[in-house]
Amino acid sequence: MSAQAVAWQQDKVILLDQRLLPKEQVYLQLSSAQQVADAIRDMVVRGAPAIGCTAAYGVVAEAMRLAKDGIPDSWPVAMAPGLEILLNSRPTAVNLAWAVERMRPLLMGDPSQVTQRLLQEADAIFHEDIASCKAMGRHGLDHLPADKNGKLVIMTHCNAGALATAGYGTALGVIRAAVEAGRPVHVFSTETRPYLQGARLTSWELLEDNIPVTLITDSMAGYLMSRGEIHAVVVGADRVAANGDVANKIGTYSHAVLAKRHGIPFLVACPLSTIDLATPHGDAIPIEERSADEVTHFMGQRVAATGVTVRNPAFDVTPAQLVSTLVTEKGAIANPDQEKVKALFNL
Amino acid sequence: MSAQAVAWQQDKVILLDQRLLPKEQVYLQLSSAQQVADAIRDMVVRGAPAIGCTAAYGVVAEAMRLAKDGIPDSWPVAMAPGLEILLNSRPTAVNLAWAVERMRPLLMGDPSQVTQRLLQEADAIFHEDIASCKAMGRHGLDHLPADKNGKLVIMTHCNAGALATAGYGTALGVIRAAVEAGRPVHVFSTETRPYLQGARLTSWELLEDNIPVTLITDSMAGYLMSRGEIHAVVVGADRVAANGDVANKIGTYSHAVLAKRHGIPFLVACPLSTIDLATPHGDAIPIEERSADEVTHFMGQRVAATGVTVRNPAFDVTPAQLVSTLVTEKGAIANPDQEKVKALFNL
Repeated sequence: MSAQAVAWQQDKVILLDQRLLPKEQVYLQLSSAQQVADAIRDMVVRGAPAIGCTAAYGVVAEAMRLAKDGIPDSWPVAMAPGLEILLNSRPTAVNLAWAVERMRPLLMGDPSQVTQRLLQEADAIFHEDIASCKAMGRHGLDHLPADKNGKLVIMTHCNAGALATAGYGTALGVIRAAVEAGRPVHVFSTETRPYLQGARLTSWELLEDNIPVTLITDSMAGYLMSRGEIHAVVVGADRVAANGDVANKIGTYSHAVLAKRHGIPFLVACPLSTIDLATPHGDAIPIEERSADEVTHFMGQRVAATGVTVRNPAFDVTPAQLVSTLVTEKGAIANPDQEKVKALFNL
Repeated sequence: MSAQAVAWQQDKVILLDQRLLPKEQVYLQLSSAQQVADAIRDMVVRGAPAIGCTAAYGVVAEAMRLAKDGIPDSWPVAMAPGLEILLNSRPTAVNLAWAVERMRPLLMGDPSQVTQRLLQEADAIFHEDIASCKAMGRHGLDHLPADKNGKLVIMTHCNAGALATAGYGTALGVIRAAVEAGRPVHVFSTETRPYLQGARLTSWELLEDNIPVTLITDSMAGYLMSRGEIHAVVVGADRVAANGDVANKIGTYSHAVLAKRHGIPFLVACPLSTIDLATPHGDAIPIEERSADEVTHFMGQRVAATGVTVRNPAFDVTPAQLVSTLVTEKGAIANPDQEKVKALFNL
C-alpha cells in the first residue's frame, strides 16, 4: 500500500501529517489522548474511517501514558477525560464516536490486561477497516457503468482514499477495484476547496499508484458532465443517516444534483460504522463550521479581501434520493432508503 | 465610483492590475496594441465589458503610437496587425470583437483626424457602458424576489462588477441598484476558482462600497441554497447566444442547475454588446482553456500533487432554460428565448 495515514508503533500513534502533503511526508508521534485529539481537530488526519482508527489508537496511547504512573484504581474513571477529549475533537464523522465506544467496554475486567486488550481491539478496528474497504471495492464494482468509447471516467470529490482510511480507501477503494479488474479507469479529482484534499491528497495518492488522474476545480464538474466527459461519480461519506441521507465533504450535494440532471450514476462508499441508525435523516446531522482562515488564506497567504465575512461549513447533506448506490462492506444497495439501509446490518 | 478598471490618460491606456488585488492597487500604463493585448490575455483586466472598453482604448493607443512616426499612408493597412493582435487576445468574450469592429470604420476618412475620432469613439464606448450598467440595474431591480424575513440575500459568481465594466457593473450593477433602492441586500460572493475573482475582486469591490458581503467557496452554494439562505442569484455573462444560452465564468452552469432545483431566481445581466446573434446557441461558443498553473498553483506556490494532469476551461454554458431573467440596458426579459432575445435589439 503506497499511502498510510495511521499506524501504531510501540506506545505511540504514528500519523502522516496530511497538512503537509504533497510537498512533504512527515510522520508525527503522539502519546496522549490530547495530542491525538488535537491532531484530529487540526486535520493532521482526516476522513471518517481514518479518524476512527486514529481515535482507537488514541485510546491505547492514553492508557499506556496513564499506566506509566502505575495501573489506575479504576480504568473507566482514569480514562474518562481522555475519551471525552477524543469524542469532542470533531463533530460530523460518526466513526469517531463509534471507535471510542467500541474501545470503552475493554476498560473493564482485569486492570493489568487493559492496555493489551485495548491495543488488540484498536488493531482489530484497523485491520477490519482495510478488509472492509476491499469488500466495498468488490461490491461497488458491480454498480459502475459500462465503458464508453473504451473509457470509464470516474469523478471523485475530496479524499476518500487510503489516506482517509486504514488503507485502500472507500471511494478510491471502488476505483482501485475497478483498476484491478482491468477497467479502463480515468479519474477526475475535484480539488475540493477550501482544504484542497483533492488537489493535495487524492491526486497524490492516485499518482503514487499510477492511476491516471486529472485535477479540476469543484466548479468544473457541471461543465464536464454536460459534455458527457464523466461516466460515474464515487464519493465517501462522513455520516449516513438511517434513511440513507449522506453527510460528506462540502460540495458533494452540488455534484449529486448535477449527476442526477445528467443521468450519471452517483455512488457513495462507506463502511457500516459510518451509518448512524440513531440519526433519522440528514437534517439531524451536525454540520461543523470551520475557521474562516481556510477560505481567506492559502498556504498562509491571504487571498481574499480583508474584512470580508466568511462561511465555512465543512460538510453538506445529500438526500438519499440523489444516491444511485450506497456501497458498504456488506453489500451495495441501489436507491437507498430506510428499509434497505437497516437491512444492511442484518446481512 | 470606488473601483475603476480602465481609463485613458493623454496617449495611454491606464489599467488597474487586477492580478494584484486586493493586496495592492497598481496601475499599468500601456501604449500599444501589443501591450494592451498582453494585459488582456494575462488578466490584468477581465470581464467582458471592461475588455471591450480596454480594447477600444487599445486601438487608440496603437494609432497614437503609429502617428508618432507620421500619419500613415493608409490607416486601415497600418492598423491591421494591431487590431488582429487585440482580437486574438481572448476568445470567449464577444465584447472584445464588438468594440474593435466598432472602432474599425473610423480608420477611414480624413487621415489627420483618425486618432481624434478613435478617441471620441472609445470614450463613447466607455461612457455608454457605465450608462448601460445603470440601466441594467434599474431593469434588474424589478425582477428580484421580495425580501424574506427582512433580508434579500443575493449570490453572485466571479466578478461582474465595476471592475469588469467601465464602472458600476452588470450583476453588481443590479445589486448596487437594489442597495440604492433601499432593499436589505446581503451578498454571498463565491470565491470563483481557479482565479478567485470573487475572493479577490467582488469581495473587495463590495466592501469598498460598504455593501455587506460573505465569501464562500464555489462548493458551498448548493448547501446554502438547500437551507433557504440564498434568495436570488445574479451573474454576468461573457457571451450570450441568439437563443439565450449564456457563456459565463466556469461554475455558473452548476449554480444555475442548483438554483433551478431550489426554485431560486437566476438572473443574468449583460449589455447588448455581449449578445452575439451570429452564435445560434451555446454549443457554438468557443470555450477558452487556460493554463494548468492556475489550478495547480496559488500565489506562485504549488498546492497540487506534482505530475497531475489538469483541465482548466475558463467558462461554461448555461442553457437559456435555466435563466429566469436576462437583464440588459434595453430591458429585462423573463425566460429568454430566441424571439425575445432578438426583440431586445429593436427596443
